[in-house]
Amino acid sequence: MYEMDYKWKEECGVYGVYSRTENVSEMTYFGLYALQHRGQESAGIALTDGAWMDVTRGMGLVNEVFRHQLPHMENQYIAIGHVRYSTTGSSLLANTQPLMVNYAGGKIALAHNGNLTNAAEIRHGLEQEGTIFQTSIDSEVFVNLIARSRKETIEERIIESLKKIKGAYCLTIMTENKLIGARDPQGFRPLCLGKLDDGTWILSSETCGLDVNDAEFVRDIKPGEMVVIDDDGVKSYMFGEGEKLASCVFEYIYFARPDSVIDGQSVHAARFKMGRILARESKFEGDIVISVPDSGTTAATGYAYEAGLPFVEGLIKNRYIGRTFIKPTQKARDTAVKLKLNAIRSVVEGKRVIMVDDSIVRGTTSGKIVRMLRAAGAKAVYMCVSSPPIGYPCFYGIDTSIRKELIAATKSVEEIREYIGADGLHFLSIEGLKQCVDCVHADDMCYACFNSAYPVAQGEKPAGDSKYVFEQRKC
Amino acid sequence: MYEMDYKWKEECGVYGVYSRTENVSEMTYFGLYALQHRGQESAGIALTDGAWMDVTRGMGLVNEVFRHQLPHMENQYIAIGHVRYSTTGSSLLANTQPLMVNYAGGKIALAHNGNLTNAAEIRHGLEQEGTIFQTSIDSEVFVNLIARSRKETIEERIIESLKKIKGAYCLTIMTENKLIGARDPQGFRPLCLGKLDDGTWILSSETCGLDVNDAEFVRDIKPGEMVVIDDDGVKSYMFGEGEKLASCVFEYIYFARPDSVIDGQSVHAARFKMGRILARESKFEGDIVISVPDSGTTAATGYAYEAGLPFVEGLIKNRYIGRTFIKPTQKARDTAVKLKLNAIRSVVEGKRVIMVDDSIVRGTTSGKIVRMLRAAGAKAVYMCVSSPPIGYPCFYGIDTSIRKELIAATKSVEEIREYIGADGLHFLSIEGLKQCVDCVHADDMCYACFNSAYPVAQGEKPAGDSKYVFEQRKC
Amino acid sequence: MYEMDYKWKEECGVYGVYSRTENVSEMTYFGLYALQHRGQESAGIALTDGAWMDVTRGMGLVNEVFRHQLPHMENQYIAIGHVRYSTTGSSLLANTQPLMVNYAGGKIALAHNGNLTNAAEIRHGLEQEGTIFQTSIDSEVFVNLIARSRKETIEERIIESLKKIKGAYCLTIMTENKLIGARDPQGFRPLCLGKLDDGTWILSSETCGLDVNDAEFVRDIKPGEMVVIDDDGVKSYMFGEGEKLASCVFEYIYFARPDSVIDGQSVHAARFKMGRILARESKFEGDIVISVPDSGTTAATGYAYEAGLPFVEGLIKNRYIGRTFIKPTQKARDTAVKLKLNAIRSVVEGKRVIMVDDSIVRGTTSGKIVRMLRAAGAKAVYMCVSSPPIGYPCFYGIDTSIRKELIAATKSVEEIREYIGADGLHFLSIEGLKQCVDCVHADDMCYACFNSAYPVAQGEKPAGDSKYVFEQRKC
Amino acid sequence: MYEMDYKWKEECGVYGVYSRTENVSEMTYFGLYALQHRGQESAGIALTDGAWMDVTRGMGLVNEVFRHQLPHMENQYIAIGHVRYSTTGSSLLANTQPLMVNYAGGKIALAHNGNLTNAAEIRHGLEQEGTIFQTSIDSEVFVNLIARSRKETIEERIIESLKKIKGAYCLTIMTENKLIGARDPQGFRPLCLGKLDDGTWILSSETCGLDVNDAEFVRDIKPGEMVVIDDDGVKSYMFGEGEKLASCVFEYIYFARPDSVIDGQSVHAARFKMGRILARESKFEGDIVISVPDSGTTAATGYAYEAGLPFVEGLIKNRYIGRTFIKPTQKARDTAVKLKLNAIRSVVEGKRVIMVDDSIVRGTTSGKIVRMLRAAGAKAVYMCVSSPPIGYPCFYGIDTSIRKELIAATKSVEEIREYIGADGLHFLSIEGLKQCVDCVHADDMCYACFNSAYPVAQGEKPAGDSKYVFEQRKC
Repeated sequence: MYEMDYKWKEECGVYGVYSRTENVSEMTYFGLYALQHRGQESAGIALTDGAWMDVTRGMGLVNEVFRHQLPHMENQYIAIGHVRYSTTGSSLLANTQPLMVNYAGGKIALAHNGNLTNAAEIRHGLEQEGTIFQTSIDSEVFVNLIARSRKETIEERIIESLKKIKGAYCLTIMTENKLIGARDPQGFRPLCLGKLDDGTWILSSETCGLDVNDAEFVRDIKPGEMVVIDDDGVKSYMFGEGEKLASCVFEYIYFARPDSVIDGQSVHAARFKMGRILARESKFEGDIVISVPDSGTTAATGYAYEAGLPFVEGLIKNRYIGRTFIKPTQKARDTAVKLKLNAIRSVVEGKRVIMVDDSIVRGTTSGKIVRMLRAAGAKAVYMCVSSPPIGYPCFYGIDTSIRKELIAATKSVEEIREYIGADGLHFLSIEGLKQCVDCVHADDMCYACFNSAYPVAQGEKPAGDSKYVFEQRKC
Repeated sequence: MYEMDYKWKEECGVYGVYSRTENVSEMTYFGLYALQHRGQESAGIALTDGAWMDVTRGMGLVNEVFRHQLPHMENQYIAIGHVRYSTTGSSLLANTQPLMVNYAGGKIALAHNGNLTNAAEIRHGLEQEGTIFQTSIDSEVFVNLIARSRKETIEERIIESLKKIKGAYCLTIMTENKLIGARDPQGFRPLCLGKLDDGTWILSSETCGLDVNDAEFVRDIKPGEMVVIDDDGVKSYMFGEGEKLASCVFEYIYFARPDSVIDGQSVHAARFKMGRILARESKFEGDIVISVPDSGTTAATGYAYEAGLPFVEGLIKNRYIGRTFIKPTQKARDTAVKLKLNAIRSVVEGKRVIMVDDSIVRGTTSGKIVRMLRAAGAKAVYMCVSSPPIGYPCFYGIDTSIRKELIAATKSVEEIREYIGADGLHFLSIEGLKQCVDCVHADDMCYACFNSAYPVAQGEKPAGDSKYVFEQRKC
Repeated sequence: MYEMDYKWKEECGVYGVYSRTENVSEMTYFGLYALQHRGQESAGIALTDGAWMDVTRGMGLVNEVFRHQLPHMENQYIAIGHVRYSTTGSSLLANTQPLMVNYAGGKIALAHNGNLTNAAEIRHGLEQEGTIFQTSIDSEVFVNLIARSRKETIEERIIESLKKIKGAYCLTIMTENKLIGARDPQGFRPLCLGKLDDGTWILSSETCGLDVNDAEFVRDIKPGEMVVIDDDGVKSYMFGEGEKLASCVFEYIYFARPDSVIDGQSVHAARFKMGRILARESKFEGDIVISVPDSGTTAATGYAYEAGLPFVEGLIKNRYIGRTFIKPTQKARDTAVKLKLNAIRSVVEGKRVIMVDDSIVRGTTSGKIVRMLRAAGAKAVYMCVSSPPIGYPCFYGIDTSIRKELIAATKSVEEIREYIGADGLHFLSIEGLKQCVDCVHADDMCYACFNSAYPVAQGEKPAGDSKYVFEQRKC
Repeated sequence: MYEMDYKWKEECGVYGVYSRTENVSEMTYFGLYALQHRGQESAGIALTDGAWMDVTRGMGLVNEVFRHQLPHMENQYIAIGHVRYSTTGSSLLANTQPLMVNYAGGKIALAHNGNLTNAAEIRHGLEQEGTIFQTSIDSEVFVNLIARSRKETIEERIIESLKKIKGAYCLTIMTENKLIGARDPQGFRPLCLGKLDDGTWILSSETCGLDVNDAEFVRDIKPGEMVVIDDDGVKSYMFGEGEKLASCVFEYIYFARPDSVIDGQSVHAARFKMGRILARESKFEGDIVISVPDSGTTAATGYAYEAGLPFVEGLIKNRYIGRTFIKPTQKARDTAVKLKLNAIRSVVEGKRVIMVDDSIVRGTTSGKIVRMLRAAGAKAVYMCVSSPPIGYPCFYGIDTSIRKELIAATKSVEEIREYIGADGLHFLSIEGLKQCVDCVHADDMCYACFNSAYPVAQGEKPAGDSKYVFEQRKC
């Protein structure tokens, strides 16, 4: 199997529903559908009826895992769900989520999005005390902390555990009678709360997961906040205030769905503005603006709007490409981009084309697209990228290749331009990017992959220093 | 399983490769990938090495059917392939293509796109003479005609058979040493010829199937033409000149890929112009232009260009929706559109939205989208449709519901507007549509689904008259 | 995949039910279960309700093909079924049965057990007249003959067709309102008729297929007889009387289930007597009698009875062996027999062992078993085979390897004994074998694989003469 | 799915190979094949090359789980394997074995056969100390004990853990450089050691697992012994001497393969003698002896030998029955026994039949078989059972239904005879049974299911007393 595409990979989506009236299993299924862009490798749903708890997990898309039927319990009233991004490894099924375990306090299920920067250290410590690990996911570290806590209530146990972990995460947790959500103190990943009129409560990585269930957006979970939902409603606990905020700016650039709103900022509006500022910054003389579909489209329309140029489709994306295909001959590898994208001659022929994409990781695909446009008759190809050059790896839950694979880690913008063969190349500046997220405080974000300013939490050593930092554990 | 969407369904794609140097199996696989939009129900590839012939077929997308390996023969040098649209029925696998049979002249494989209007009559006649039928596909009718021909050469046998059949079709046929293509005399469906520098010849329903293999477009197969490819190159035979031409205009509106060029007319250019003329005809006062993704996007960008309005994404399409999902509760049926599309509040709130789609069949989905936009705050929603109202069924290979399901068959434009709840509704006029295909003679097209002027071939009774006309046999 | 075993392969089982009161689909499913020993490659059931007809077929055992549900129609009242033996080939699924087709007279389904010796000739003739063939099964030849008959009634059409074909076969045929069974004029393969008290009629290859449905045995279908079952009951037509009878004696030796009764002769009784006569003929001095399980067991118990020696289990068969396993290393090939059989030291140690098996085809397995017994301590191993040496191939529906693979075709009994390493070896004599089937006229059987006296039908050329005889088509 | 049969279910088989020369993965695969009768629900193989460790597990038979390929590592040299019996539950896959975990000492894999009687107590204690449990198998309890041990060496850790657990078990354990086997101090379940000439060592639940790999039997692992295998050979550690021995007598009656030898006693010889003693005890006047295949056959041949009566096959077993079939109608449930077994009229008609089976659990199947024999004409049916009546449940790893389902728990022998409709019924006496295992000390066995004398270990409370005793955890 040959992977069709290369992009930075998001680190999962989480969901949770508490309802005495609705079908919580079906709602979670729909919610995961809406969060599917956050992970396509595996999906799972855990359910409880107050006494029994069960989890169904599998490899593949939500509608593949639940191809034949939804999980169901007679009196189910809490559910949590998880979608996981595509990775490799030998024991994939064992690493699917939610994780469900028995401990002294009963049963607990947990779904996790993100990356703990001190997971290996904690894990090492737990192992020294006699703990075994059956998976390589951070969730298992976290569940062990909860189980080993000497606190009495589940709320205290979780808070004690949360205080021990560092890094980027959002969690949905389910006990036999509570739905719990938590967001790390620096607010790397998004998590929001929604409700229905009938008293149903929902937790979702993004607001698009509320929309699909016709739920009303209530508010974002705050960085360092844990919410506990039961029949008495929602209680809030702050366990980690005062940390340096560091929301991941890549959620706005690429990861999140454009129809989501994170911390008050519309993703589409941010992305559209990136295009507008790109236009102001780049000043290429073009005839038309095209996008690399689909992720470059929002910024491209913003660029066209600002530049007063027509937005047209210059590249067509095959909608049936699937995620992988049979191991190809060398020829087929070269064909892979052609299988996915094709240039439209009647659009680009004789034109100076401004092409907008969201990011450049390795640069090979960009080069092939530029050549494709030239072969279709483009007079000039200017590439505009709605993010700054990615020069540094991410330690907070994004699957970035090691630094040497990042083209911007070793090449200047001019060298990249030459490598991809474009007539011009412009990356959005960090300053420009900051203007695009004006609904939140732009300084409360993490730009480390652009400028290596890793947002160290209180008491944490700088990321580059930790000997565990490269042992990344996912979701 | 619940079908997510309702659109007119295209009737399959055909492909063929003749090469002494290339991997014909892999090339056909790539070609079918590029033609996947013409059919997602099943796929198949037939191969020959000159002595042996074999076919591999299965249900699903090309990359599902050939998940593990490509068909292969040591000295393979001819291949044909087929993708089939989604239909229903009890013996689906039996109806997959290419069809491969033994007859007195050896082995023959055939892939068929289209619909014979006199298939039932011919079939009835063949049955009376003792022929059995194992499938319900027109290909089997055609292969029996070839087998029963008293002519000596395969070329004569095929031409004799082609002269007996009426309707819309394109064929790729393979014998142990020839690759043959044919297009019906009225030219309903597209078929083109391409080549590589090394002497490889390709037949493809659309030019996008040439592009994916880096092949050069040679020419369209002419209506009423059969081409025979062997080691001596390409020979052309005209078997049906002089018929009233009737290219299906819906290929330009919806079926074909925008990057294809049919009979000299760029599909994207036609579709873009439909948007421009829509803008001229409709004259709605709007703030922004949005599309119903993905099929409405090309026309929407044309509309925006002509109207001088910004094109923005007002609706986001879930890219991981899959083709079906588990049988839903009634609630879930209502959620189906929400699973697929979501409105972006930050875009449409307070705006007068001009929404462009390619067609309206039943009107239910359009109504749901309009309500979704209003719920997201749109001040007004004007719907523009880049085709005239579809008031009549198609007998030439399109799966149109019976007439009463076509909303335009029973309702006026004003009644449809009211039904879908839009503030305005405009359909492209037939005259406007004709201006969009100016590279071909606009009168050489079929507009019967709009105006019921069914393009009767020589010697054929009018479609509505035939007692067999509703016994549609597909592909 | 590596085939675990080598035995002569039976040529399928057929079944049919006509009932206005019972669930004909379930009864056919149970009947095929009971006939599963006649074929494990594929299974299928065709159903009709008088108007509609449908067939469900698949690769694998009956309970694998119908893993999830049985075929079902609201008012189903006729069903036929088929199990097919394991073969190889590229288009296996296409060759499954029953075959269902449309012809001028309506729909017809057909299940076929056996081998037509003139299939290739007829097929050639049909092809010359313009017939196409989509499979390589004899059933398709037969259905074409029926379809091309000029006779008026289905009974006449079938009889006309039956008169044209030569060879060994049993058929169950289903039209929209009739269940039809036929047995070849020489009576090679078995077919019997059963009924329930409520007017349900059953056709089955063996009587064990009646027992499983608690049906009463009515009678065997006679060689050259066709029975037609409808609401008026059973009508009999003789289409081929007077031929030289030639029931396959291997049904009694190995193919049929011991609990079946064929043409009045209990299979178990015949097989038990083979053991008794073996004991009389062989006169080995042994301490114990063991069998090669499972097919050698009945004869072994007969041998022990006649010889007054204890029958004990000296070899244990692994009941979970499956039909194939992963492609093994050379070591694994040697292990294959060990995976299936193991000797019991406590039984054979120090004993003179008389081991009974039903036949020797290639001799390699027998040799391995003899070595296994010696390694477990047997003092002497005498092998007794309840059939004469197989020196000649079968042209009537048994998958015998070409002659050179048959060890008895090239080696004398003494040479075989030496090859397998036994202390003694005795094959049942043909004369002895004839005594075992005393309920039928022993001369009405085919012994051609032992003595090459191929039972040529009237007007047929001797088998060895026909140029088509090696182009075997199965079932 | 409907289970075809009801028998007491064995509790898994374990295997292990240590070899610097052989393919340990393939050898384990073959070993599990030979142990397949001990469990058909799932199978798994864990491998190590000294640095890396991996496990492959799945639902189904060994050749289903490893359908496509064997697990493989470049320098693999230790493997353990497991087959698990069929059970029910919602998280079946999670409960497959071997279990592989990380702990402070590295990686460890464990395969477990048996049942810990104090698992729930230990588990409860571990949970109180903060341990989580992800499965419901005893193996997880055991691995946690090892991980939490403060001892330095793995040998000490395991011994400390073994001393804490009570019940019936055999274990194979693998670290990165050791293969370890252990058998409980009372010796409930079998475990033996074998070797090849090249220094390869094997652990197997039964000796049939050695035979399949052509290994030499070295010795049984002693009750209370742990063996540790590495490049220095085999070291033995006694951790539990002096307990009351209690080998499960049902291994000899039904569970083990007849070709295995356990603690010096041939299973076949024991089973054959059960038949002989049955004959002496029962004294029925019969004409023939038949068995209920396959498990009753060995005893039946012993009975025939002792009684001087012919052993014949009176019941034929369908060899293709599969483990389950589609959910049947009520009629089909009644047919289930008929699908599996059929009586042979020619054998039993007019005869006084002595039928031997190994045990009676619920009695329903026995009753159907008796009726089947009568319907086939048997003049009288005497049933002989080669075990005493099962009146009490087993707490040591056998899936016995709760006591009220055991017919012998509530009915006298005469009442059972009446219930099954036999003319006579005799169960082997406990005294008779003891004579059959004369190679071991008959008093060192467990007969608790017959006489409720549960073999309490030192310091253990009587089984019936424990509040956890019914919370059975399997394998």
